[in-house]
Amino acid sequence: MSTAPSDTFHVYDTTLRDGAQQEGMNLSVADKLAIAQLLDDLGVGFIEGGWPGAVPKDTDFFARAKKELTLRNAQLAAFGATRRAGVRAYDDPQVRALLDADTPVVTLVAKSDVRHVERALRTTREENLAMITDTVAFLVGEGRRVVLDAEHFFDGYRYDSAYALSAVDAAFSAGAEVVTLCDTNGGMLPSWVGEITAEVSSAVGHEALASGAVRLGIHAHNDSGCAVANSLAAVEAGATHVQGTVNGYGERTGNADLVAVVANLELKRGMTLLAGNGLRDATRIAHAISEVTNISPFARQPYVGASAFAHKGGLHASAIRVDPDMYQHTDPTSVGNDMRMLVSDMAGRASIELKGRELGFDLAGQAELLARVTNRVKDGEAAGYTYEAADASFELVLLEEMGQRPGYFSVESWRTIVETVPGRAAGPDAEALAEATVKLSAGGERHVSTGEGNGPVNALDQALRDALTRVYPEIERFELIDFKVRILDSEQGTDATTRVLIEHTDGVRSWSTVGVGPNVIEAAWEALTDGHVYGLLKAGVEPL
Amino acid sequence: MSTAPSDTFHVYDTTLRDGAQQEGMNLSVADKLAIAQLLDDLGVGFIEGGWPGAVPKDTDFFARAKKELTLRNAQLAAFGATRRAGVRAYDDPQVRALLDADTPVVTLVAKSDVRHVERALRTTREENLAMITDTVAFLVGEGRRVVLDAEHFFDGYRYDSAYALSAVDAAFSAGAEVVTLCDTNGGMLPSWVGEITAEVSSAVGHEALASGAVRLGIHAHNDSGCAVANSLAAVEAGATHVQGTVNGYGERTGNADLVAVVANLELKRGMTLLAGNGLRDATRIAHAISEVTNISPFARQPYVGASAFAHKGGLHASAIRVDPDMYQHTDPTSVGNDMRMLVSDMAGRASIELKGRELGFDLAGQAELLARVTNRVKDGEAAGYTYEAADASFELVLLEEMGQRPGYFSVESWRTIVETVPGRAAGPDAEALAEATVKLSAGGERHVSTGEGNGPVNALDQALRDALTRVYPEIERFELIDFKVRILDSEQGTDATTRVLIEHTDGVRSWSTVGVGPNVIEAAWEALTDGHVYGLLKAGVEPL
Repeated sequence: MSTAPSDTFHVYDTTLRDGAQQEGMNLSVADKLAIAQLLDDLGVGFIEGGWPGAVPKDTDFFARAKKELTLRNAQLAAFGATRRAGVRAYDDPQVRALLDADTPVVTLVAKSDVRHVERALRTTREENLAMITDTVAFLVGEGRRVVLDAEHFFDGYRYDSAYALSAVDAAFSAGAEVVTLCDTNGGMLPSWVGEITAEVSSAVGHEALASGAVRLGIHAHNDSGCAVANSLAAVEAGATHVQGTVNGYGERTGNADLVAVVANLELKRGMTLLAGNGLRDATRIAHAISEVTNISPFARQPYVGASAFAHKGGLHASAIRVDPDMYQHTDPTSVGNDMRMLVSDMAGRASIELKGRELGFDLAGQAELLARVTNRVKDGEAAGYTYEAADASFELVLLEEMGQRPGYFSVESWRTIVETVPGRAAGPDAEALAEATVKLSAGGERHVSTGEGNGPVNALDQALRDALTRVYPEIERFELIDFKVRILDSEQGTDATTRVLIEHTDGVRSWSTVGVGPNVIEAAWEALTDGHVYGLLKAGVEPL
Repeated sequence: MSTAPSDTFHVYDTTLRDGAQQEGMNLSVADKLAIAQLLDDLGVGFIEGGWPGAVPKDTDFFARAKKELTLRNAQLAAFGATRRAGVRAYDDPQVRALLDADTPVVTLVAKSDVRHVERALRTTREENLAMITDTVAFLVGEGRRVVLDAEHFFDGYRYDSAYALSAVDAAFSAGAEVVTLCDTNGGMLPSWVGEITAEVSSAVGHEALASGAVRLGIHAHNDSGCAVANSLAAVEAGATHVQGTVNGYGERTGNADLVAVVANLELKRGMTLLAGNGLRDATRIAHAISEVTNISPFARQPYVGASAFAHKGGLHASAIRVDPDMYQHTDPTSVGNDMRMLVSDMAGRASIELKGRELGFDLAGQAELLARVTNRVKDGEAAGYTYEAADASFELVLLEEMGQRPGYFSVESWRTIVETVPGRAAGPDAEALAEATVKLSAGGERHVSTGEGNGPVNALDQALRDALTRVYPEIERFELIDFKVRILDSEQGTDATTRVLIEHTDGVRSWSTVGVGPNVIEAAWEALTDGHVYGLLKAGVEPL
């Protein structure tokens, strides 16, 4: 890791801890592992995984992360608090849980606003400083790199700067590598952050900061709409550690959008912050993370939003074609995004052509086919399909338009019934049972099969597999590993359109398909059957 | 209008013109009139209504605005361009259309980046300046207050500052009241905006600016995530005219969010900018405008978002009770918003107690009840429930633990069938039909009813309503308006747990309920029935 950008500047992601505080977000351990892997792909230096000991799910996360994650770029950080008042760090189970998480980095939250020390923590100014000193020193002694998050730092500094600085000093004196100045309530304006960070830099000493022996960090929230700018202001004033979250997730108005901060610093300030040129994958990764969190992406999000480089035609259209740089602040490909012309299909065809090439189809010379596929995709997306997250469905559309989609089976009808268990009262804790019947033709014969499950999609999947494996034993190897539902235009109640994304695996590779319909079962059925078709195709099976 | 804040500082709204460039926004003339009235309620000084002459809808808007709007605070501005090259302003129909709009203010867009003059406008440096001079002088001569929007100003200034300044000088010399420095491509960072605005202030002359005879304005876009901060930086450097849009609407990543800019300046800089203390209505007005635009509000939006003052962490909840100001950057009522406590698995008793108080239950003295409810919430969240997004379900849990949950009906059984249309081939475009049967007791009688729908939840809802309205006619008024599905632990395929959130309305208020189960239908059923129970309870209906 000696040449990693993280040695000179810390890009520190807290999506899994502070981001998860967002209203409506509820991540499972599997979700957290999937997000951590994506963050590592992005090339961040540090991933804060959660609060082991305090949150049981987070304890599990660190245990599983050690076994299941292969991180190429990032170090994991466990988050926790300084020891309680009046006990030794060694004796505080919360502190010991941080050690047990077995991460190279431990991040401690501590008070630096004397009002919070006295009124929320209800301890003395001196004991709070001792809590910092003891906990940092204990963890450093155990071989951890320690980051101290100075909570409410800016508010505290404006109220009593001497005390706020004494907290910073306590942390560094005890061996902390970073002290993060936190705008916990998010109300700072950039000029305040800039001034205060510059004063703290002077107090800590410019030489110590320049040597990299100690660092100041910034942790901003977006309550004043300035989280990105506040992060930049701190960096301009000497901070070399930036905390934030992907998609700006977080409590209230969210945390600083880490991708926007990094993109500004890399593209506009010429810094190199992410490993492996990760910024070029930022759009894909931000969207993939929003699939895991199941929180709809915000189209207007800087850099990675679907609208971020979308131009309404008219006045600018012809000029943009001549010289796009005159009408966009940066090259969209630098963050993995695309320019879109909202009135012209120019951009559409280009990306379909590119996508085709990615899948091994050369569409460049086939203008008519390209136009047909582009229209098909546009109509599909207007109806709710998303091919971005369902490569297998896109490839099936392409094959269909080329007249090459294989016909492994032909469905006659299907049905599923969900009902309360007969003979048992349908009280609040009653369980329902699902049954499904599928009738289809394959290999020249008609097959009728029935499946049971604890849900209608599960039952349909069982019935479909049962019928198909009789003809195509390869289906045995396929497994359904992910199933996501999103309601589109949800303000229409149960009449809304439903999109289902399904992921299958054959144990080696996995593939995703999409189905759309007014009905979750119907949408799932489309994605299920496409998933089996694609799996058979990739297994090299000939239709019987 | 002599004492209006707009005499000292211009709050200039361009929601109806630049905001309407947003992808997916399509405003009718009636929509624009409704929004203009709301903007006047907010207390802005100027409302830019559109481009008369160029956009027929906008010509109509100005004609109808004169007759139909009663503006107490704002002046209307018509937007257009400087005259074409080679014609007199008087002879340019586009310029004459601006006069015909009959507004006190006319805003002209003009080039100030020499590259755009030569490559997009395809005219000479000199002719562009003459176009500014002539058009401004002509409109001033006709009695208009003229604002000149210097397009691409910052990019132009960084490339050729002398030319950019000559455009500013031409406008002021011809009688313009304001020159707005526009970051048209949105890529500026706050320190650049601050420096350049300060340099332009010096060039224009601090005395002229201080006298109010001329003004510099700022027009920022959010492509770098800094639109609000860029606007503040310009104000700190001498700008006294700020353009923006409500909810940050606009092309690509949107314009500067005018409410956030104004709130920062009023609440944190002590300025008075809006007439009639309008900021106190900002949340209501921002949401009302999103109803008109039919674009879902962004929950994390600074100041006015639904989540902007919503607290989740259990850690903080006990302290918030002591002193809310320690945990929020400003008083939510100053922008017409509310503090909310979210109930989540990170929450302890303190936040349950606070949440109870918010709902009108005093749990402070009832330690045992409080403990029971807290455990129930924690167990529920571990099983997949989320009460933070389902206040109604939380209240029902509370009532249940207090032994006060009303028993309006008792379900015997339910069933739903989804199948392909019998007798029709189940090809890729086939539709499925859903039917449901519900058996329940209410009002001392047994009811069996059947519903049909395009999906199983829709069919169950129909059947349930049909049975219940026979006893409780109030159910007629309830409407299902939102339906969200989330698969938890989704890496287990179709065996995963499903969470359904349902929102009902009675036309006046709306409420959300949550259901969880291994099965989407079962989860939806739980949320549906709880939604009806809560609606009946709030309608004051007695169980029969």
